[in-house]
Amino acid sequence: MGFLDELRAVVPVLPASAAGDRSGVAGDGLPLAIARPDTVDGVRAVLRLASAHGVPVVPRGAGTGLAGGAVAGRGELVLDVSGLDRIVEIDPVDALAVVEPGVRTAELDRAAQAFGLRYAPDPASAEISTIGGNIATNAGGMRCVKYGVTREAVLGLDVVLADGRLIRTGRRTLKGVAGLDLTSLFVGSEGTLGVVVGATLRLRPLPGRTLTAAAAFDSVTAAARACAELTRQRREPSVLELLDGATLEVIDRAQGTDLAARGGALVIAQADGPAAEEEITAIAKVLAEEATWSEWSGDAESAERLLFARRMALPSIERFGRALIEDICVPRSRLAEAFAGVSRIAATHGVRIYSFAHAGDGNLHPIVGYETLDAAVRRAGDDLFALALDLGGTVTGEHGVGLLKRDWLAREAGPEVLSVQAAVKAALDPQGILNPGKAF
Amino acid sequence: MGFLDELRAVVPVLPASAAGDRSGVAGDGLPLAIARPDTVDGVRAVLRLASAHGVPVVPRGAGTGLAGGAVAGRGELVLDVSGLDRIVEIDPVDALAVVEPGVRTAELDRAAQAFGLRYAPDPASAEISTIGGNIATNAGGMRCVKYGVTREAVLGLDVVLADGRLIRTGRRTLKGVAGLDLTSLFVGSEGTLGVVVGATLRLRPLPGRTLTAAAAFDSVTAAARACAELTRQRREPSVLELLDGATLEVIDRAQGTDLAARGGALVIAQADGPAAEEEITAIAKVLAEEATWSEWSGDAESAERLLFARRMALPSIERFGRALIEDICVPRSRLAEAFAGVSRIAATHGVRIYSFAHAGDGNLHPIVGYETLDAAVRRAGDDLFALALDLGGTVTGEHGVGLLKRDWLAREAGPEVLSVQAAVKAALDPQGILNPGKAF
Ligand SMILES: Cc1cc2nc3c(=O)[nH]c(=O)nc-3n(C[C@H](O)[C@H](O)[C@H](O)COP(=O)(O)OP(=O)(O)OC[C@H]3O[C@@H](n4cnc5c(N)ncnc54)[C@H](O)[C@@H]3O)c2cc1C
Ligand SMILES: Cc1cc2nc3c(=O)[nH]c(=O)nc-3n(C[C@H](O)[C@H](O)[C@H](O)COP(=O)(O)OP(=O)(O)OC[C@H]3O[C@@H](n4cnc5c(N)ncnc54)[C@H](O)[C@@H]3O)c2cc1C
Repeated sequence: MGFLDELRAVVPVLPASAAGDRSGVAGDGLPLAIARPDTVDGVRAVLRLASAHGVPVVPRGAGTGLAGGAVAGRGELVLDVSGLDRIVEIDPVDALAVVEPGVRTAELDRAAQAFGLRYAPDPASAEISTIGGNIATNAGGMRCVKYGVTREAVLGLDVVLADGRLIRTGRRTLKGVAGLDLTSLFVGSEGTLGVVVGATLRLRPLPGRTLTAAAAFDSVTAAARACAELTRQRREPSVLELLDGATLEVIDRAQGTDLAARGGALVIAQADGPAAEEEITAIAKVLAEEATWSEWSGDAESAERLLFARRMALPSIERFGRALIEDICVPRSRLAEAFAGVSRIAATHGVRIYSFAHAGDGNLHPIVGYETLDAAVRRAGDDLFALALDLGGTVTGEHGVGLLKRDWLAREAGPEVLSVQAAVKAALDPQGILNPGKAF
Repeated sequence: MGFLDELRAVVPVLPASAAGDRSGVAGDGLPLAIARPDTVDGVRAVLRLASAHGVPVVPRGAGTGLAGGAVAGRGELVLDVSGLDRIVEIDPVDALAVVEPGVRTAELDRAAQAFGLRYAPDPASAEISTIGGNIATNAGGMRCVKYGVTREAVLGLDVVLADGRLIRTGRRTLKGVAGLDLTSLFVGSEGTLGVVVGATLRLRPLPGRTLTAAAAFDSVTAAARACAELTRQRREPSVLELLDGATLEVIDRAQGTDLAARGGALVIAQADGPAAEEEITAIAKVLAEEATWSEWSGDAESAERLLFARRMALPSIERFGRALIEDICVPRSRLAEAFAGVSRIAATHGVRIYSFAHAGDGNLHPIVGYETLDAAVRRAGDDLFALALDLGGTVTGEHGVGLLKRDWLAREAGPEVLSVQAAVKAALDPQGILNPGKAF
């Protein structure tokens, strides 16, 4: 019996079809097949067989990734774990959840809300991405500026290793230092070290009050300066988003809003919890200094509209053309320089770049619009990475390395770090069958 | 030339002397010598030589560890990095610090205060322990219930590997997902994977206001129930400490305080930041329900006195005898059961146990007092670990595994996880010269 026959004997297998993600990168040919187990034992069986046959395996959640991490091609097996989608437990007293990897991020958040809790990390893709994918990419989101990224929410993991062994890392307690921190090692490892089949996640109290302030600025650099000033003044927003003029215009076109009428750049800030009012007042004051328009007593509905528009930034851009989606992160103090650099790069290469940012983290998404992915677009992309490194930043703040940024990871990390990463990879997956060619 | 001669040619070397830590465990004989480099190049030179000669190396900060991690014996070289003690940079705009490993924790915190910032993780040993030791043990402290443990404060590390290679992990940005999270892997690795020679640390805004509430209870289980109720009510204290009656008495004896007069157990809570008043009011109300005595409008000075007493818990116990210092962590909802279990264990083995806890994290320190470390004391220790695991907890919340808990780590983690840890260790330190026999 061949590999596929053996596979079909143990788990549901779908016929091969193109397996891409939202990066727009396609696999090199059709993968072998798509295994879609719905139990942990099924995942183990798949990996045991793949190991025995030396077949490369590409773990897959919802395929919303933006770095090509879930892209699979010729000779590769897609291991789709989105069928393991149960919320196993929500413990309202200890404020934690135990879930399978295929649970949608927003679904967990809603389930937690029934207990006065929430799952804090909120990628803009929360309605469509899976917790497993979020863990594998260490996803960020708007609330992360106050509540931390996915890593800060993960207490423990169930992971199936390349050879089918199942291990449980971490714990249900908030603290613990027994042994190496394997949990953090798997978080953000993009499916290269193991397949996440279960997670114990920390939930946070719902903040009670959330207040919003918004301000428009003449230029994106003025907006970025205002955001950096918030850091300097030790303000603690729970959301701090910045959108440039090009992004405002395209959202307006796609969603029928009138954001661009307010100015050449928009900042949306929130503060939450018992100190929300004091905090948002202070934030609004700082923003108002250089703003051309501002509001902060806006009702909850207008705040929701603004944030919805922010979440629609990427889909709006993609509605009118193709897009190279970038994701760089710089020290917060250098945000204005980063935006200035992005404008320079757009001008140099004659390309259109839409930019928005999780400004409170220094995490920018410059999106290069294009019709054909020609040399100018690619060079603009490279210049964006070089800019990030020049400013003491990183080539990926939250989307991951995947297929797209391997060369730049090498530039950022250097050969010594890469060789340590490779050694760790070899220790966990000696045959190299887990998501080969991704991440490093 | 022998190893020691070669060593003396490159770095300062002190003659061998007993190298223990604060766990009370002694090394098996005298170590070879103590290398005390004061530059990164010196550390690299030591490790290159040790690798070439196959000499085991025990990294050492201030030796305040409580798990035997820095204990060195016959044939081992102590690598004392406390001489690398410069605060290299405090960046007030990006709110981060770059330090060498020998900087004392409290010293960094004080330096940050000049900029309206602080280094949040505050082990009770902050005045005497080093940042490098804190990182190697992932140290916790009183403020960690709100601000996270050491791991949450570490953005990037400079690490010298066993063979003398220097790598830089992580970054200066708040977010970043380029490559495996080696930073977290080194945090808490107890000197077994590499020697930390530099760290980029996140600083937090000074909270402005800090308010304190205290309450006494008839019994430690009543106090623990009140703490669990705070979690259930989604309160967010910045400090939540619990001391049992035995601990109160010994502090009174050593420090001349009168804590025990208030009741059979004491809870000290703080709230900070702009919502401090609202939060502490709510906390005080919950505590008061079962309390026999409570106060929350106490002036700053009385709060400082209470917290100082708490910090002196361990030194006070040690003043009157020897002590086996334990450090277990349970889910927060099980705190009362944990304290009840500790009392049962003390009765069963006829030993005296003093207990205090970072109650907001479920992290208990049951301290077994003894004159001679006899079978009863050891069995009590074992029962404490078994209790932690029975309650779904861990055998070490913040002190680490070191020499003392290796057997129990094996029980907690299981053979599969241990073998993965060993594989990672072998990948980074193939000769096994870094702190052999510690942690796993
Ligand atoms: C409109 C839109 C908005 C977005 N906004 C954000 C944002 O705000 N922040 C952000 O961080 N990202 C964002 N993303 C990117 C994407 O949603 C995230 O990377 C998400 O975490 C991917 O989840 P997924 O389930 O789709 O994973 P996939 O795309 O299926 O996989 C992503 C990577 O994880 C691996 N993987 C998936 N599941 C597992 C598993 N169970 N075990 C091991 N490895 C696994 C895959 O091999 C791959 O390398 C956005 C994407 C879109 C389309
Ligand atoms: C009175 C008292 C109170 C305490 N309170 C707390 C508390 O509240 N919370 C808490 O977590 N701990 C506490 N501790 C324990 C101890 O202070 C911590 O574990 C501390 O982090 C150890 O720091 P150190 O510099 O003394 O390290 P050491 O004891 O010298 O070493 C500890 C471990 O780290 C390794 N190590 C040290 N430096 C480096 C380096 N640069 N690179 C790699 N490895 C290194 C050593 O090999 C060893 O395994 C307390 C101890 C005492 C005596």
